[in-house]
Amino acid sequence: MSGTSLDGVDAAVVRLAKHRDRIAIDLLGTACIEFPRQFRQALLRATEEPLRVAELADLGCVLMHYYNRALADAIACSGAKAEAIGIHGQTLWHQPESHESFGIECRTTFQLATPAIVAATFGVPVVSDFRTADVALGGHGAPLVPILDWELLRDPTHCIVALNIGGIANVTVIPPKATVESICAFDTGPGNVWIDAAMHRYWGKRYDDGGRTAAAGTLITPLAERLRTIEFIAAPPPKSTGRELFSRHTLEELLAPLDRAMVPAEDIVATLTWFTAWSIAENIRRYATDRTTIVVSGGGANNATLLSMLERELPGARIVRLSDYCGIPESAKEAVLMAYLAYRTLGGLASSVVSVTGAHRSAVLGSITPPP
Amino acid sequence: MSGTSLDGVDAAVVRLAKHRDRIAIDLLGTACIEFPRQFRQALLRATEEPLRVAELADLGCVLMHYYNRALADAIACSGAKAEAIGIHGQTLWHQPESHESFGIECRTTFQLATPAIVAATFGVPVVSDFRTADVALGGHGAPLVPILDWELLRDPTHCIVALNIGGIANVTVIPPKATVESICAFDTGPGNVWIDAAMHRYWGKRYDDGGRTAAAGTLITPLAERLRTIEFIAAPPPKSTGRELFSRHTLEELLAPLDRAMVPAEDIVATLTWFTAWSIAENIRRYATDRTTIVVSGGGANNATLLSMLERELPGARIVRLSDYCGIPESAKEAVLMAYLAYRTLGGLASSVVSVTGAHRSAVLGSITPPP
Repeated sequence: MSGTSLDGVDAAVVRLAKHRDRIAIDLLGTACIEFPRQFRQALLRATEEPLRVAELADLGCVLMHYYNRALADAIACSGAKAEAIGIHGQTLWHQPESHESFGIECRTTFQLATPAIVAATFGVPVVSDFRTADVALGGHGAPLVPILDWELLRDPTHCIVALNIGGIANVTVIPPKATVESICAFDTGPGNVWIDAAMHRYWGKRYDDGGRTAAAGTLITPLAERLRTIEFIAAPPPKSTGRELFSRHTLEELLAPLDRAMVPAEDIVATLTWFTAWSIAENIRRYATDRTTIVVSGGGANNATLLSMLERELPGARIVRLSDYCGIPESAKEAVLMAYLAYRTLGGLASSVVSVTGAHRSAVLGSITPPP
Repeated sequence: MSGTSLDGVDAAVVRLAKHRDRIAIDLLGTACIEFPRQFRQALLRATEEPLRVAELADLGCVLMHYYNRALADAIACSGAKAEAIGIHGQTLWHQPESHESFGIECRTTFQLATPAIVAATFGVPVVSDFRTADVALGGHGAPLVPILDWELLRDPTHCIVALNIGGIANVTVIPPKATVESICAFDTGPGNVWIDAAMHRYWGKRYDDGGRTAAAGTLITPLAERLRTIEFIAAPPPKSTGRELFSRHTLEELLAPLDRAMVPAEDIVATLTWFTAWSIAENIRRYATDRTTIVVSGGGANNATLLSMLERELPGARIVRLSDYCGIPESAKEAVLMAYLAYRTLGGLASSVVSVTGAHRSAVLGSITPPP
């Protein structure tokens, strides 16, 4: 998996086995490869600026090189032999809402990948392109993680909220004794995307390590009030967003007045961190329940300031990290998801959750590239 | 199939059945949908100029709309029920030669397609992206047609040359009693690409209907001499080209001096038609034999001037149209190929011909998108 944070590829080797109504998920190994700075910047530019198809094809080829390295490392770490691989590819565009192009109704999502390169390297089937089928059926094509949350976390007596804080943050609300169709999931707004962008803008850093920068700042009330008005946050589910709504460009527009006012950069990071926490909490209050167990995953689970702000916003909730809850490291969850989705697709099982994506019907997701 | 001519989508419904060492190919129906002018121009721009990934995703969605229409028409025309579909997508880039990007060795080819849209519409598996596996194995990823030529045309006693004149022209040389590995195939140079571009440049027309414009012109010797020096033509196989080498831009550079000299446009079309015929003949003389049966397919088979120029260049050869030879209309051959390749991929059969593409080994081609 490589997510909207554009920081690199996470790989997981997972043993999957069907036991009656459960698929057992056994994590055998993980690995993570960071993208070199230049390549990360090129991917980011590709989400925002025009590029030649030649450049895009090269980006896809280079991306598969890093997927291959992460996969090789994870396989070596696990000591197992891969039988199939699921890859997400890099989302460069996501506009599942209906719009017109050349007089034709379009809904689009674009995950850069060249699965044949991975299939040729490892000699096993590769499943990829997990979002287009749901979008073709009128759905948002996102989030994909709810079915895994349901598989991992469903509980006979408690309501569980799975919260993933990647570039974008999303939640899955799993009522007691949930069936797949009784769960509800949606993006809540930014995860680390704006925090990371501000860290880069002021200090050239990739992220706010442990949330220490945010902890050193104080809330800028006028900025907080402007952020509160972003309509996506309170909009009812189903809803999903990519980097379009929470782009660097939009952030620049928000921050430009503060540059002139010489506001301390720590305060800006603190306010963006508060906004991430508030937007998550606001969604849980409105569309779930504030008395719940929240199981946190994604890079944002390492941001202690973000988590304590979230606790302050939701005093009735219990907040637990995924690794403490079920032994899967926070950073490995989305990679585990890819293996789980590939397993379902190869077994002919549908994986999209209609109550979540808004599609007409549930679908087997992805394309299968046989080993050449 | 939609080819480098960018003129539209050809669809064919084919019944395929394995009989000992042959796969019987029975054409049940065909259809053709032309792209609207604006969309065709947008695709052409996408091969040459930078564009946003958002625009590219929209082009893919609109392209699938026309694929769907062509497929629906062909299925209706055949009276049959589709069980699987093979789609080529639109080639927007093809650079299978090794090159470096971000310090990584890349070989790239890019076929625009969103197979999930087609799979969702027809409810059957869709096979797509037929070129990337061969490129991943070090091959040129082209041409794809040789295995179909071998299936359709191989002869116990005669050498056959299958010639397809699309945007680019390619030949398959099939010796008597050929095995797959004894055939040889490669692009010879331009097919209709420059003729079409000149027809558009001077008359706003899409192509030279029946070759009548070329028939009214005479050869411009200095232009012919310049064209003869294009190195691709005489280069030894394996070789393949997309529109990169025979782009509008290169043509503009060739034609600019003639504009100033007020040369009649018919002469330019005649000279470009001669160049197409000469480049095909030169390749057959050098890399096959000039005493052979040439079975012609593709849009260029309708250009009588081109075929008679070819006869003049190769007096020892017998030139027959594919429809006269085996009942498959010239224009349907590449669409039949897509069905044939999909059949092979779904049956786990390799389809790339190593002697043709230069790959390390033969490969099962394409990705299978199950009906969602």
